Amino acid sequence: MRGQLYIALLHHPVLDREGRVITSAVTNADIHDIARSAKTYGVKRFFIVTPIADQADLVRTIIGHWTCGAGGTLNPSRREALEALEVAGSLEEVVEVIAREESGPVSTVATGARLDGSCVSHGQLLEILENGCGPTLFIFGTGWGLAGEVIENSRYRLEPINGAGAYNHLSVRSAVAITLDRLFGRRG
Amino acid sequence: MRGQLYIALLHHPVLDREGRVITSAVTNADIHDIARSAKTYGVKRFFIVTPIADQADLVRTIIGHWTCGAGGTLNPSRREALEALEVAGSLEEVVEVIAREESGPVSTVATGARLDGSCVSHGQLLEILENGCGPTLFIFGTGWGLAGEVIENSRYRLEPINGAGAYNHLSVRSAVAITLDRLFGRRG
Repeated sequence: MRGQLYIALLHHPVLDREGRVITSAVTNADIHDIARSAKTYGVKRFFIVTPIADQADLVRTIIGHWTCGAGGTLNPSRREALEALEVAGSLEEVVEVIAREESGPVSTVATGARLDGSCVSHGQLLEILENGCGPTLFIFGTGWGLAGEVIENSRYRLEPINGAGAYNHLSVRSAVAITLDRLFGRRG
Repeated sequence: MRGQLYIALLHHPVLDREGRVITSAVTNADIHDIARSAKTYGVKRFFIVTPIADQADLVRTIIGHWTCGAGGTLNPSRREALEALEVAGSLEEVVEVIAREESGPVSTVATGARLDGSCVSHGQLLEILENGCGPTLFIFGTGWGLAGEVIENSRYRLEPINGAGAYNHLSVRSAVAITLDRLFGRRG
């Protein structure tokens, strides 16, 4: 029996193009696209993680517009997606919220285009989830990917998405969509 | 032997929420995300299709910035993706360009979240492609999806992407990413 699924999109700690740890800016397209993918694939909650109060307020304003404001009336499917969206100040806070809600430990899964070492494949991870590993939190990084400490502290590392060749520069929105589809999509 | 792959993102003729045929506006995130997904999965060319000259000029300005301008120097992976991007005024023009380039007929594949009737599955389509059907053009619609005429005139209709439940409102950027991964992604 699979546990509940969660997603965290980190804006800190993530890397810049030179590999320095930074805080990236929140992007409107990330909010909408990932919320819609999360809803499509049965994710219970999607956390936008930023330590910057102004950025957190901006996200809350966007959520308000689409859930309580004019946007929600105009576009109910978008409202439905954004209702599962929440803002948090840190990854630790997200893990605490989920652990409290689910009354148990959270399995964290780090993702990234350049992960190596002891990664699990999508097939292996699905098997682990189906065998019951409790609530699962998928962690995605903005910028140039998750900082090393996040990867090291995660329970699992998911193998990178491979396309047709060496080029591998998907947007994080596309990476979330593909990851969820590989694991939870139904094929005809 | 599989033929070359192409993508067209249509801004006309597409539907609005009431099912009327409209011309939608070009979106910056579509350009970048789909160009990067296309490059990742070995698509030869990605066409942005709009009949509005101002919108076409806008796309050409964006392409110029990232391929010849400051953006290309700053971000080579983005330049590489946008080099495969082209603007066209209509779907007919796209088909003509490809037919001329490939010296043969083009197999068109309509996509959409609400397609029904005689759809091919992702597995069936891959088999058709591997058996050699020449150059293939995947057609994606913005707004509320492709107009009926586009679907009727396409050689194949691809089954909709199914998530975990009834909710199915992926962004077109996510739909392109998932479609390419289902067909051409490599799994570990």
